[in-house]
Amino acid sequence: MPYGAKSAATIRRYALECALFLLNRDVKMIVAACNTVSAVALPRLKELLRIPLIGVLEPGVEAGLRATHANRIGVIGTQSTISSDAYQNRLRELRPGIDVSARACPLFVPLAEEGRTTGPIVHKIAEAYLKPLKHHSIDALILGCTHYPVLAPVIASVMGENVALVDSAETTAKAVEDVMLREGLLRTYGPSRINCYVTDIPLNFKKLTRRFFGKPVERVEQVELTTD
Amino acid sequence: MPYGAKSAATIRRYALECALFLLNRDVKMIVAACNTVSAVALPRLKELLRIPLIGVLEPGVEAGLRATHANRIGVIGTQSTISSDAYQNRLRELRPGIDVSARACPLFVPLAEEGRTTGPIVHKIAEAYLKPLKHHSIDALILGCTHYPVLAPVIASVMGENVALVDSAETTAKAVEDVMLREGLLRTYGPSRINCYVTDIPLNFKKLTRRFFGKPVERVEQVELTTD
Repeated sequence: MPYGAKSAATIRRYALECALFLLNRDVKMIVAACNTVSAVALPRLKELLRIPLIGVLEPGVEAGLRATHANRIGVIGTQSTISSDAYQNRLRELRPGIDVSARACPLFVPLAEEGRTTGPIVHKIAEAYLKPLKHHSIDALILGCTHYPVLAPVIASVMGENVALVDSAETTAKAVEDVMLREGLLRTYGPSRINCYVTDIPLNFKKLTRRFFGKPVERVEQVELTTD
Repeated sequence: MPYGAKSAATIRRYALECALFLLNRDVKMIVAACNTVSAVALPRLKELLRIPLIGVLEPGVEAGLRATHANRIGVIGTQSTISSDAYQNRLRELRPGIDVSARACPLFVPLAEEGRTTGPIVHKIAEAYLKPLKHHSIDALILGCTHYPVLAPVIASVMGENVALVDSAETTAKAVEDVMLREGLLRTYGPSRINCYVTDIPLNFKKLTRRFFGKPVERVEQVELTTD
């Protein structure tokens, strides 16, 4: 990471390497829990692989369409996500005539990573990015990047109480359950556990994972990915 | 990129891959023109490779020592550069008793990449990072990251006119010339040309290279690196 400033070709290659790594561990389903990967690489993965695959874009779009009553919606995300037009196209496909405003917010990821989620600096940056969307009178804003929910308070304070913030996390979890039930993949017995595989463990990895997960992440294993 | 938030092991692996790629193209000397690579990976590369290798840390340290008269110096850089203590140790080694203040500025690289180099936002961020250094009464500040010179005006306005900003670019070029002359490697005939090899060409690559080089970069070739 970060994926948001890489080329589409590189994002697709990384996503395929990640998927093949997981397939070698006999997973029954893969969730691409990254908006940039969902927007840029998921269609290609679905062409290539048989396993059920789900991204965070489709659940975010569905939640967004439920949240807008004025049919004026906004989407924020990384440079690559917004430039792919994936959110904009899917929203217009499912609801022709909808008014979509999109904006890349490249500083939001490094702000979240630095833990700078409150105070005048992040407020001023959020204002600079979001003012055009606010002037567009949207009534719902899709947080199209997994880092953005930690900035939700400042985004809400800039957008005001009449704009619903849409986070795809819960809708994605529900969509995963639906697929698991439909395909008969849901395990109903025994305890669950989480194994994390990462391609790098940078200096502040522990602090960051605690910030995003709300608790320490255990069983973290560093691996090297390859398509060989 | 960015390298500044990756682990030391990953930075060393990438640096070795880059160096081997260049050696396969029969270069006569390699400059690691990245402070993070210079601080974290250069000693290991020097152990492994015979070719003349130069980083930007040593020239930056030398220029910094010439610039400070009060023997109170500051260094700013990425998380990985500052955490490596490479600048701090080398400054103290060459001038025992010097007072060194160091500070990581993780938002400076994304700000420079976004082209947000003037205005109240970048000024406020610079103030937040640099105030502790200013209170420490330094009289010279090493810009220990290749991105920071594009932020020099705002850094200067925060630090005030009594603090000299030290950019290692010119000192590094001079050090390269010295090595070339000493080793008899300097070519004195024919036109020069620049070939650029990159591992990715992201969306705004052209705009960014123009911003940093001051003119368009030609002959850019995307390559895949490997140690095989």
